Amino acid sequence: MKFNTALESIKTYEAGKPIELVVREYGIDKDQIVKLASNENPFGCSPKVKDAVRAIIDNMALYPDDSMVKLKSALSNKYGIQSNELIIGAGSDQVIEFAIHAKAHSGSKVLMNSVTFAMYEIYAKQVGAQIIRTASREHKMDEFYALYQEHKPSIIFLCTPNNPTGDGLLASELVSFIEKIDNDTLVIVDGAYMEYARFKDPSYAVEPGDLVKRFNNVLFLGTFSKAYGLGGMRVGYGIACAPIIEALYKVRPPFNITTLSLEAASVALEDELFVQECIADNFSQMERYKEFAHAKGITVIESYTNFVTLLLPEEKNSSKIAQELLKKGMIVRDLSSYGLNAIRVTIGTRVQNDRFFELTDSLV
Amino acid sequence: MKFNTALESIKTYEAGKPIELVVREYGIDKDQIVKLASNENPFGCSPKVKDAVRAIIDNMALYPDDSMVKLKSALSNKYGIQSNELIIGAGSDQVIEFAIHAKAHSGSKVLMNSVTFAMYEIYAKQVGAQIIRTASREHKMDEFYALYQEHKPSIIFLCTPNNPTGDGLLASELVSFIEKIDNDTLVIVDGAYMEYARFKDPSYAVEPGDLVKRFNNVLFLGTFSKAYGLGGMRVGYGIACAPIIEALYKVRPPFNITTLSLEAASVALEDELFVQECIADNFSQMERYKEFAHAKGITVIESYTNFVTLLLPEEKNSSKIAQELLKKGMIVRDLSSYGLNAIRVTIGTRVQNDRFFELTDSLV
Repeated sequence: MKFNTALESIKTYEAGKPIELVVREYGIDKDQIVKLASNENPFGCSPKVKDAVRAIIDNMALYPDDSMVKLKSALSNKYGIQSNELIIGAGSDQVIEFAIHAKAHSGSKVLMNSVTFAMYEIYAKQVGAQIIRTASREHKMDEFYALYQEHKPSIIFLCTPNNPTGDGLLASELVSFIEKIDNDTLVIVDGAYMEYARFKDPSYAVEPGDLVKRFNNVLFLGTFSKAYGLGGMRVGYGIACAPIIEALYKVRPPFNITTLSLEAASVALEDELFVQECIADNFSQMERYKEFAHAKGITVIESYTNFVTLLLPEEKNSSKIAQELLKKGMIVRDLSSYGLNAIRVTIGTRVQNDRFFELTDSLV
Repeated sequence: MKFNTALESIKTYEAGKPIELVVREYGIDKDQIVKLASNENPFGCSPKVKDAVRAIIDNMALYPDDSMVKLKSALSNKYGIQSNELIIGAGSDQVIEFAIHAKAHSGSKVLMNSVTFAMYEIYAKQVGAQIIRTASREHKMDEFYALYQEHKPSIIFLCTPNNPTGDGLLASELVSFIEKIDNDTLVIVDGAYMEYARFKDPSYAVEPGDLVKRFNNVLFLGTFSKAYGLGGMRVGYGIACAPIIEALYKVRPPFNITTLSLEAASVALEDELFVQECIADNFSQMERYKEFAHAKGITVIESYTNFVTLLLPEEKNSSKIAQELLKKGMIVRDLSSYGLNAIRVTIGTRVQNDRFFELTDSLV
């Protein structure tokens, strides 16, 4: 059977290895495994969220409220936006998919950073779009602007803080760039880690409420998978002016969020204190990674997220080191497929981080 | 901002109204509302499923096992298939989306029944495909074959038992039809209600294991949303030969099923007794609907599902009746948007059905 030709060039997304897989492949006891590979919140979600989900477990049989009133109302309040400026996705990932399916097509051009979240390319290739990338590892707005002028892309992805490198863009720099972009180019600002940037340095914090008031070609993405500790529940969102949201709704499947996930995300927003405490701990523990790296002569990219990217010296091989760690039950992300001789490590709890330093010490 | 032209012709899916919406719009007390609109299992899911989900509530922070080993292994055993002949979707709905995105494109033709599940058309239009429909309300395989020969569609949808009408196709008739179809046309057999058909009359039961062994152009769809009582958890699946599954995987977003949903579906398969008891009750209660309709001079389409479709006489208006029922807190599905003067009613518990007969008595 023949399939659409666009499929031929699609690579599969390389996800962080789940604990179950390491148990199966390496025969390591589940309790001995530490996963610092998918930038999950090591403290999980708020206890209030767990209570709320337990309380509605009888509702698993019922289709979700597809108007998502409770969650949309909570998010609208949080960001000072209208409900029609908001769309909920199964992870912000799904909102990326909506945007590409609504705006791009075979022959479209999509502009993104040299090193950035892998799903932009995968979704763009599904519709046969052409990928344009900058040259530098960090987001350089002059490079983006030169390529924008040359190619007039349908979509520009800006990922800040950037995954998988952790560096951020000054909000002022981002806004100045968007001001120069034509109305018919959709600028997607992926803020999956924005809660961390906002805590660390407010000048790196993009405010989606301001963006949507000011620009009619910007889509901001946020998620519950990182700071809110709900990676397993698949809830993210897009914020944009109403006409963009309306277009994305046309490619949204009904009931794209589970009944339990809608409740979990809504209640998570009621316990911001929990989230802020987790973030504070994150940056406090991050100092230990910087010290470790410094002592080892490893470069750490300044991170505005819940992970650190360790750039290894030439004589060390990131794939080898990630593999060695895996055998010992420590899951981290090798970035060789992104063209970097680096590993990305999620900041864990104190105990998890201790284990990382202990296991890595002899390898680097 | 301009979006893809295909979006212009897309209608939004009209979902069964959730209870929350009726509470908000009509100010009816939540406990007074009966929803017989979305073909959910009125007994919910197995108690074992609830226990299992409660037991892993701490895992909400962790991304799902994207290889879905546990669920794929349970489904493979159930159907006697290999793991690479299986793909899991957020509802079988998402597998429809995968199939259309993998196989159809602008200019493709997609053939489906006159009256059938609305999402086939919505997804097909997202990629700009042309919709071809048969003339009869029931699936008539000679009509399908004539249109197949005339149009050579990329995809044919067969929905058996059919939603929203409840009638079924003999398995032998379905197989004879597929035998005549070219290898490059993908035949999608949507068996969302197959558990009910299998219980009522095995000659209407399509066995996906047999289909996939025999044909390399068939995709069977199943779901946990109906008989398994997990409509809120969004889990369905597609079964086909390995090359088809491989193509669908290319357009599958990673982590498309929540951590809790994977566990719920896996454990649901361990309690088939619960499911069979629910189905037995369903057909026993369905007799009461037939009697009610008979007494009222209403035609009931013979149903192989967990719902009945009541064809109203000309002097009664289905939209009006559905609206009257809604005001009284009874949610059913008006089928006027499908071109039928009919209402579709999910078979509920004895008490829910009593309430339906009581409220409907004066309206029909």
